[in-house]
Parts: sequence; structure tokens; C-alpha cells
Amino acid sequence: MNYKMMGRFLSQILFVEAFFMIPALCVSLGYREGPGARAFAITIALILAIALVLYRVCKGAPSAFRAREGLVCVSISWIIMSLLGCLPFYLSREIPKYVDALFEIVSGFTTTGASIVPEVEKLSHGILYWRSFSHWVGGMGVLVFLLAFTGQKGQGFTMHLLRAESPGPSVGKLVPKMRKTAGILYLLYIVLTIINFLFLVAGKMPVFDAVCTAFGTAGTGGFGIKNDSMGSYSPYLQNVTTVFMILFGINFSCYYLLLLRQFKNVFKDEELRTYLGIILISIVLITLDIRGLYPTLGETVRHSAFQVGSIITTSGYSTTDFDLWPSFSKTILLLLMVSGACAGSTGGGMKVARLMLIFKSLGRNIRQSISPRKVEIVRNNGAPVDEKILDNVNAYLAAYVAILFGIFLIISLDGFSIGTNFSAVLCTFNNIGPGFEAVGPMCNFSIYSDLSTFVLTWGMLAGRLEIFPMLVLFSHNTWKKR
Amino acid sequence: MNYKMMGRFLSQILFVEAFFMIPALCVSLGYREGPGARAFAITIALILAIALVLYRVCKGAPSAFRAREGLVCVSISWIIMSLLGCLPFYLSREIPKYVDALFEIVSGFTTTGASIVPEVEKLSHGILYWRSFSHWVGGMGVLVFLLAFTGQKGQGFTMHLLRAESPGPSVGKLVPKMRKTAGILYLLYIVLTIINFLFLVAGKMPVFDAVCTAFGTAGTGGFGIKNDSMGSYSPYLQNVTTVFMILFGINFSCYYLLLLRQFKNVFKDEELRTYLGIILISIVLITLDIRGLYPTLGETVRHSAFQVGSIITTSGYSTTDFDLWPSFSKTILLLLMVSGACAGSTGGGMKVARLMLIFKSLGRNIRQSISPRKVEIVRNNGAPVDEKILDNVNAYLAAYVAILFGIFLIISLDGFSIGTNFSAVLCTFNNIGPGFEAVGPMCNFSIYSDLSTFVLTWGMLAGRLEIFPMLVLFSHNTWKKR
Repeated sequence: MNYKMMGRFLSQILFVEAFFMIPALCVSLGYREGPGARAFAITIALILAIALVLYRVCKGAPSAFRAREGLVCVSISWIIMSLLGCLPFYLSREIPKYVDALFEIVSGFTTTGASIVPEVEKLSHGILYWRSFSHWVGGMGVLVFLLAFTGQKGQGFTMHLLRAESPGPSVGKLVPKMRKTAGILYLLYIVLTIINFLFLVAGKMPVFDAVCTAFGTAGTGGFGIKNDSMGSYSPYLQNVTTVFMILFGINFSCYYLLLLRQFKNVFKDEELRTYLGIILISIVLITLDIRGLYPTLGETVRHSAFQVGSIITTSGYSTTDFDLWPSFSKTILLLLMVSGACAGSTGGGMKVARLMLIFKSLGRNIRQSISPRKVEIVRNNGAPVDEKILDNVNAYLAAYVAILFGIFLIISLDGFSIGTNFSAVLCTFNNIGPGFEAVGPMCNFSIYSDLSTFVLTWGMLAGRLEIFPMLVLFSHNTWKKR
Repeated sequence: MNYKMMGRFLSQILFVEAFFMIPALCVSLGYREGPGARAFAITIALILAIALVLYRVCKGAPSAFRAREGLVCVSISWIIMSLLGCLPFYLSREIPKYVDALFEIVSGFTTTGASIVPEVEKLSHGILYWRSFSHWVGGMGVLVFLLAFTGQKGQGFTMHLLRAESPGPSVGKLVPKMRKTAGILYLLYIVLTIINFLFLVAGKMPVFDAVCTAFGTAGTGGFGIKNDSMGSYSPYLQNVTTVFMILFGINFSCYYLLLLRQFKNVFKDEELRTYLGIILISIVLITLDIRGLYPTLGETVRHSAFQVGSIITTSGYSTTDFDLWPSFSKTILLLLMVSGACAGSTGGGMKVARLMLIFKSLGRNIRQSISPRKVEIVRNNGAPVDEKILDNVNAYLAAYVAILFGIFLIISLDGFSIGTNFSAVLCTFNNIGPGFEAVGPMCNFSIYSDLSTFVLTWGMLAGRLEIFPMLVLFSHNTWKKR
């Protein structure tokens, strides 16, 4: 294990984190929030100090780099970023317990949006800003930011990191010229966020609200700044958010292809079509199921579309208490939680692309059990899929189910109902946010014990990093010397 | 598709079913139950008539046989056996609706043990006997019976059928000399059932009760003949049942090896050790969790062991209302439902062997993500496992999850809670029996609509036949001509 190089890399991550925290400090100062500003200042100073020490100690490290170091680097970075990033919550006493503060920031960075805070409207502006901004930072990934805008040596290094941090079964079409690609993706991300912000401001949303909401939408995070999430905003603002959530759930390489004017490739993309198809069907089914609950058809469709967009992209905003909806609609939402958005988007969950590969591979298996001697290749967008990727996708499913049930078992110690626990696990592990019953959209996660909070926090990280980087930490093969 | 051969095979299956129904007719006559006896007589006559016609029409069929025909044969046999086997319930008017009667007999044949009958004590003796006997018949499989005791031509034919009907990822060590093996397994099954019966009678259980209970235990079915399942029997009888349920959850090839005096191979069997380990740990954890609910430690252990044995072997008997247990214990039981018993036993679920392969394959995947160039072979009991089996196990998991969620969605239309629906799906698909909440051990499945009943019935069949034979029916490749 090349510890020196990892240390140097970590120091850079911390510099970026300190840099990202400055706007929050400014917001606190602007609103004259003393304790908040002090908390941010102390945290920034601490992060810079640690970064400097690390940088000094790890100077001149060799840049040889292997797969395991990429995985470990990513998971350690996310853990340390979270351990330090939650300090403002804790130091300002706005979240009095450290384990809760950690849950909150991990929920932010992983774009989960599950909150431990009973009344968000009581939080100060600086803290609210940092909470929402953490979604934006985590959505595209801090490491991707670093690769895009700083000089990183070693193509192998870059590839291993991107592979570990990017959501989806494979890095896809845009693999060559990593750094340039990362830069373009980030620029697209920034531009889309700004457009979203402008649409919100055009609908007369206050600027502070619009900034926070746009961050949460772009990162598909879902931290609201109101107790009722998006419920009290105008229908126009809710619809804008619906559209942008769905847009941020699309694979960013599609936007890149649009820039290159390759409209045909975008239009024919199997994952995009499936994703939009699932959204459409879900909206129709739920609208039929909840008809009569709202005065007009328009309002019914609005709530249905908002919740479908929010859940499939794993944002977690809500406009209404969908825990009161009938069972069928709730089950559809539960299935959307598992599916998640497109690979290469800011959304979480299993990803539509991965589900498609699982189903294609299953179909092949059925056909082969009918005609055992037939050889068949699984294809995606017409191109053959490497058997290794299929193998990986299947291992992902196994790990996914195993972790899901593992966390489910541990948090059941707290004694809440099976429905509550199951949706709590799904909502954190898939980085969605609110669940059903006691963790429903109008409730929060403060009901759980410290142990459960901690386990759910780990689950959010595992979900965001697509499991393997977090599992690798527990394998003794990772730490043994060659 | 070789329809003629399938028809001839089906006629043999029907002869066996009619033969199996004769004891039930005798019981009805013995207890002077007119409507029941008439229902059995009519059904037997009908089955024999259909079998004779089929036999005539399909005489002289060629015996060439392919994989797809094996799969289709198995699923069609089970479906037709169920469609006809439920007639006594329906004709005697003891279960007035046909779809309910079908649910009940499928629950029997698949050794699920979920009942649609609100008060079983009101059923007549003949019907109760047939209900319990269907567990015994389905436990080892009707086709295996046919292979063991009648002359079937074609080794390929036999293999395809056994593979489709036997539970577990592979037919295992006993593959050569199929027919002899099937015969030995059936004899072991009969002998163990008789021993179980004798132990029950020795504990002063009435003979009729002992016969039915032994059938349900041997098939790991779980239809009780009392409204409170096993709750009102003495502690001795409950403990005997605990032990025998666990024994019937063990791979029958282990007993065969014991007969051959290969004790070392049995003792070293990885699946057996894991299975017993899971049982032991679960009993300890649940005993700790429910301490204080029962007056003495002995009683606590008894209930804990009984429920663990009942659920992991997917029997579904109960001695107490475990729906009232704390969340942690209920979650453990839920996980045991998914795990299931050993491959090659009469139990259902995913099977311990399959879970072990999934975890081993996952572990290899993690190690390979750390050291990508390392080549590694998955081993079971020291012997390398064919990659094709691993591939198959992964496909099984994907199909399992997909079907689970599919049924879950459809039955949610009835509007029951997520916890109820989820446990109803788990309990039928894994062939367990009672679940939690509204389908808990003291409740029954009569709450669901006809559509849900039908879908759950299909799920039980899919679970018992390990999914693929039932999926193959829906593939157009199966039906297209070469």
C-alpha cells in the first residue's frame, strides 16, 4: 500500500473541502450568525492544518498506483471529509450530538437527504447553506472535481479513482481523456445548476431558498429548508423542480453527446429510454391510484410526477405526505427507490443501466436453460457487454442484498416496525431520503439509537460509493503486504 | 416440443396422483364423512379418466428428450396436479371458492403451509388428511417418486427432470445412477417419517394427529390441524417436532452418506455446518431478545428453537404468536425465511448452499477488485465449483429478487400494509407459511383478493420449482419450432 501517495492525495482533498466551506462562512457572516461563523472558521482552520501537515509528511511520494489504492483512497477520502465536514453542525451546537452531525453531513455528501433534524426551519442560514451545498459537492463527487481542476499525475490513478467514485456499472463511452471529460462534466453540472436556479428565481422564490433548492436538486439530494420540504412552494416551483430532478437523473454523457450534436445516439440510448419509460408509467399508475385524494386532476398529476421524479432520482423532496397514499402507490415508490436513476448521473440506487444488465443476463440464462448449447452475447446499445462487467453487476446485486439485510437486522434492535425499518434502510442505502411510516416524508431519522444512526450512516456511504470501495476496507487482502 | 412424450409422462403422473388420493378416500369413509368421500371418489374417477385418455392418445411417443421438455414437463405436471388435486376441497364445499381451493392445495404440494381456511378445526378428517398428505407428496416431489418406482426410459430425461424438481443449486454428489438414487432417497424419506410418527405417538398424540403432523413435518409443510397450529400440544411433542423439522431440512445425501458409513464426509460438509451454525446462533439471539416474555428459560428456549426450526426449514408450524415478538427477533425470522434449509432437503427458500456460493462468489469479486490480475477458483467442500453453476446461482438471485418485487407490487393493490404484503410474499414464495402482521401465525391468507390469491399461488409454485421451470413457460423460445 502506497500510504505516502494516499496521504498526499488526501491533503489535496482537504484543501478542496476547506475551499468549499468558505461560501458557507460568508453566508454566516452575511446573516450575522456568530456561533455559525465561528464554527465554520474553526473547522476551516482545522482542515487546513491537517492538510498542511499531511502535505509536508507525504511530500515526494512515488506515483505508482494500483487498483486497491484507488478504492481505498476513495473510501478514506469520503470518510475523512465527512468526519471533518460535520464539525460546523456540531461546533455551532445546532446539532448537539456528534454522531447525529455525522449522519447529517454524510446524508448531505451522499445526496441522501435524510435528516436527523426535527425542525429544519430553526437552523441558521450558514448551516442550511452548508447542508444543501454538501449535496451539490457530493453529487458529482469531490474526487472528480479534483481530477478536473488540478493536476493529477498518472492515467491509471485517475482511472481507478473515477471508476470507484462514478455511479454505474462502467465508466462508459467517455473513458479516454479522463481529465478533460471530468472537466466537461463538471462544467455541464454547473451550467445546469445555474439554469435551475434562474428558473426558480423567475418563479419568485427567494434567492437564498433558490440557491439551496437548486443545490439539492442538482445533487439529487433532497435536504429541504422548510419543515414541509417543497409542500408550501407554488405549483410552478414544484413543477420546475420535478423537471430538473428528472434532468439531473440522466446520464451526463447524454448532455455531452448533445453538445457534440449526436442527437441520434442520445435518442437511441437504451438506458435513457427505459428511465423515461419507467417514469411515465409510474406517474400514470400512481395518478390512477390516488385519484380522488386531491381536488383536481392537475394537482393529482403534479403530486404524482413530483414524487416519482423525486424518488427515482433518489432526491427525496416531497410536496405531500405520500405515506398517506394507498399501498399500491407506496409500493411503486418503494420499487423506484431500488431502481434509482441513470448511471453517470448524480442519482443513487442500483441504477437503471445495472438493472437492465441484470435482466438481460437473466434472460440469457433462461434461454440457455431451454437450449443449453446455444452461445449468446449480452448487448447494450447494440455493442457486446464484457462478461466481466456482467459478473460484476451480479456480484453487486449479491452485495446489495446482503448489506440491505445486514443493516435491516441491526437497526431492528431499536424495535420499530418492519415497514419503518425496511424503508429506512432502503432510503439511506439508496441515498433517497425520507421513507415510510415512522421515517416518512413528514418525519425524520432522530428516532433511531446511536448504533443504528451510525450503521445507517455507513450504509449511505456504501450506497453512494457503490458498495465495493467500502467493502474493500474490510478485506484483509487490502492491508496485507505483497 | 415432443408433446406426445410429455402427454404420456403426464398420464403417469396422474395415475400416481389418483393412487395417492385413495388413502384420503378411505379416511373419509372410515369417519363416515359423506360429502368428503363423494368428493374424493369423483375426483379420483375424473383423474383416472383424463389419465387414460392421455395415455391412449400419446401411445408410442418417441423418447428423445431435451432440456426444455424437462423443464416444461415439470411445471405443467405440477400445475395440472394442483388443478385436479384441489377438487376434493371444492367439491366437498369445505372450501367454497375454486381459487381458494387451488391456493390451499398448491400451498400443500409446495410445502408452504399457508392456509386460506379461517378455522381448520371445522374441516372433515378426510380433507385434513389430504391437506397434510399433500405436504408429504410435494416434499420429495411426485416426479422423483415416479422416477424411483416406475420404469422411465432415457437417462437424459431423468436427469433433466430431477434437475428441475430437486431443490438446490446442483443435483450434487449423487448424480450417477439416478433411478437408484431416487429410490434410496424416497426410502430414507419414508423411514424418517415413520420414526417421527412413532416419537409423536409415544408422546400420547392421537394417531390421526400424529399422522398429519408427521406428514407436515417431513415435507416441511406446516399445515396444522388445530387453529393454534402446534400451540396446544405438550412441550415434548413440540420438541420432537423441532428436532424432526431440523432433520428434514438437512440434505438427504447426508443420510445416504451416513448409511455408507462415510461419517467424515458428513461431518465436514460445509453446508450442513453452516445450516446448523445459523440455527444455533439464531436460537441464542432470539432467546436473549425475548427473555422475560415467558415464565421460564426452558420455555423461552423451547419457543425460540421451535420457531427457528420451523422458519429456516420453511415448515411454518408455530407454538406461539411470534408476531408479538420484538422487532429484532422478527427480523431474524424474516432473514431465515430468505435463507431456507439445505439443498436436497424438503425445505424451501433460497437454500443455504446457494447462499454460500453467492457469498463465496462475492468474496472472490472483492478480492479481484483489489488485485485485478489474480485468478481464483470458488470451492465447495474443497472441490472447485463450475463457473456455470456460479452463473446460474447469480441468475437465480436476480430472478428471485425480480419475482419477489413483482408479486409484492401486484398484491399491494389490495391495500394492506407494506409489512403484511412483504411478509406474505416472502412466506409464499419461500414456501414457509404464516408471516407477520395480518398474515401472522394466528391469521390466514383469506384476506386477499382473488387476483392476489392467484398470484401468490403462482409464486408458491415458482418457489417450489426454483423459479426457472415456471419462467420457461413464459419464454417464446420454449414454444417456437426449431
